[in-house]
Amino acid sequence: MAHVLVLNAGSSSLKFGLFTAQAEPEPLATGLVDRIGGAARLVLKDAQGKPLHDADLPSDQARDHHGALQAALAQIEARFADAQVQAVGHRIVHGGQHFADPVELTPDVMTKLHTLVPFAPLHQPHNLAGVQAAMAEFPQARQVACFDTAFHRSHPFVNDTFALPRSYYDKGVRRYGFHGLSYDYISGRLAQMAPSIHAGRVVVAHLGNGASMCGMLAGRSLASTMGFSALDGLPMGTRSGQLDPGVMLYMLQQEGLGASDISDLLYKRSGLLGLSGVSHDMRTLLASDDPHAGQAIDYFTFRIRRELGAMAAALEGLDAVVFTGGIGENAAPIRHAVCTGMRWIGIDLDEAANAANATVISTGHSRVRVMVIPTNEELIIARAAAANPA
Amino acid sequence: MAHVLVLNAGSSSLKFGLFTAQAEPEPLATGLVDRIGGAARLVLKDAQGKPLHDADLPSDQARDHHGALQAALAQIEARFADAQVQAVGHRIVHGGQHFADPVELTPDVMTKLHTLVPFAPLHQPHNLAGVQAAMAEFPQARQVACFDTAFHRSHPFVNDTFALPRSYYDKGVRRYGFHGLSYDYISGRLAQMAPSIHAGRVVVAHLGNGASMCGMLAGRSLASTMGFSALDGLPMGTRSGQLDPGVMLYMLQQEGLGASDISDLLYKRSGLLGLSGVSHDMRTLLASDDPHAGQAIDYFTFRIRRELGAMAAALEGLDAVVFTGGIGENAAPIRHAVCTGMRWIGIDLDEAANAANATVISTGHSRVRVMVIPTNEELIIARAAAANPA
Repeated sequence: MAHVLVLNAGSSSLKFGLFTAQAEPEPLATGLVDRIGGAARLVLKDAQGKPLHDADLPSDQARDHHGALQAALAQIEARFADAQVQAVGHRIVHGGQHFADPVELTPDVMTKLHTLVPFAPLHQPHNLAGVQAAMAEFPQARQVACFDTAFHRSHPFVNDTFALPRSYYDKGVRRYGFHGLSYDYISGRLAQMAPSIHAGRVVVAHLGNGASMCGMLAGRSLASTMGFSALDGLPMGTRSGQLDPGVMLYMLQQEGLGASDISDLLYKRSGLLGLSGVSHDMRTLLASDDPHAGQAIDYFTFRIRRELGAMAAALEGLDAVVFTGGIGENAAPIRHAVCTGMRWIGIDLDEAANAANATVISTGHSRVRVMVIPTNEELIIARAAAANPA
Repeated sequence: MAHVLVLNAGSSSLKFGLFTAQAEPEPLATGLVDRIGGAARLVLKDAQGKPLHDADLPSDQARDHHGALQAALAQIEARFADAQVQAVGHRIVHGGQHFADPVELTPDVMTKLHTLVPFAPLHQPHNLAGVQAAMAEFPQARQVACFDTAFHRSHPFVNDTFALPRSYYDKGVRRYGFHGLSYDYISGRLAQMAPSIHAGRVVVAHLGNGASMCGMLAGRSLASTMGFSALDGLPMGTRSGQLDPGVMLYMLQQEGLGASDISDLLYKRSGLLGLSGVSHDMRTLLASDDPHAGQAIDYFTFRIRRELGAMAAALEGLDAVVFTGGIGENAAPIRHAVCTGMRWIGIDLDEAANAANATVISTGHSRVRVMVIPTNEELIIARAAAANPA
């Protein structure tokens, strides 16, 4: 039977999934190797989330993404002996200006993607290492790239540029936006579930350890809170989100910090973790009685409301809000704080539905419909791998 | 007769005004010395704007702020022989965390203001040089500081912090907001002109060569688009406005730019000038048929709409918008582009009133009232100097 493999290679992790190779692929197993390069561990689950395997990797396989992939494949083959991987779909953070759709990873495409490393130095090299490992393991399979930026290539110029000298736009310093696979999935689900909403002005809030919002008109991205990098916009678990450029000048000129110090500070020690001093994890913050944890949550929900107003301005109105991602799907108090502060825009929250993580959490009187839709980025990748990309 | 002098000392300029020392001071003359340190020129006008003097400065007076002040005073004394300056009011960009009102410039206050230089290295030293010059010329007069940050000290925590490690907030890396003297004046005018509007949720757009917006609730600042520095928020004549922190990391790590290169780029070569490649001046851009000029204008008005939505979210609704500053007061096409994109929020523009720069430019049916009110920062400073500050 024909299958597709989905890979998402991060700096020290490899997420993977095995799907049937159908127009609408069915998941058979998902897994994760984390702490690659250290005390790596492999977890494999079946389609219902039941653990099939959970163990440390031998040190020779723990070293890099290739070893991690081999360990994952060994576990998959032990359980799915008939698996025939005809295509591998890869999550690639950056597709640059030109890739607005999934693309087969030909040598020419690989060369182009390597030129984008300066735009995403913390992510792109690891994504491409995952591709190299998969090409070595499956030399006959089609390798397909799916980009976090692709869904946003429909942005108009005003949402694609910064007010820098024009040469920066020309060399690719643009507002790419990310989480595009998630927004693509949500757009498709909305088209099925609520076609009249899908046709309108929708803001999707993807709230996880990374967080962004996307303003969609008729299912296409018009604006995103993320810009050139995955740092901009909403505060995140450990990332700062929006920051006055003058603060970075202060760090450089007054504190004498270097670029790598600042990168480390803004990517790993800021956001909810920095502001609370307690945790990057929203579940921990919601359970904490530390006042700084409460302030971090207040900042997070305020910035979501603020950007919801901004996205509505970009869309010239608002018909629906969709919450997705780990926090968006599960954290009722966060949705409550966002929605009760947005009554002025026409949101009327159904408290009971919200507490139950229901699909529609606005009341019947609410002018703006509010929904909770679990995302599924892996399915978007599996579909692209199972299809015949251009 | 008792008078007050108002001083606004920039990096290479000195603006000044002579007022009567009354509770509501009356202007007698205003003037400007620009290109201090170079080919300095002094212009003096009467209260109706009629030129009284316009000439280059001798080189010994052109050298620094003190020489410029002496040249200005010589022209004032020649025309207002009975002028008795009992107080000098100074525009000071940064009052830090604590100064929420005008304050007399005692030695202790001067020491505190010097400690704020790292927060505004391009402006604060020049402001304080102006104070030193005035103290030397008027040793008996009261010297009063009026801060661009003071009006915003009423911001709640969520509008005062960034999502950085808490130590940054504690050491003063906060969202100060600027143009506070302008907003203070507009708040006062609104209280006179439209008390019911003043009591509500108002966004004031101060659009000049510098530009920001302020969300006011009952006449007090709740939020500003400017943050720690005068770089953040809206794009300006030559300043970038909002910028993804990842773009600065790119400039540092991939382009090898240094902090002073980046500071120069973001303060002096970005904004409308950078994006258009034509001019920093909105009048020039509006008259240009260069498509890049049009794109720069589109970006400017889009970012104003975007931030208007964001400010409305901060205020939980919107009752009125006030345009002020050189562009806000005079550029009907800019107000048109902002307002016609905000119909969704309840703005209905009266095209004829807008074209005439009328005080109220929304129609009688408009749920949100839109007004044009000329600002007067000098009067706010003159009032503080004429009063007895704490």
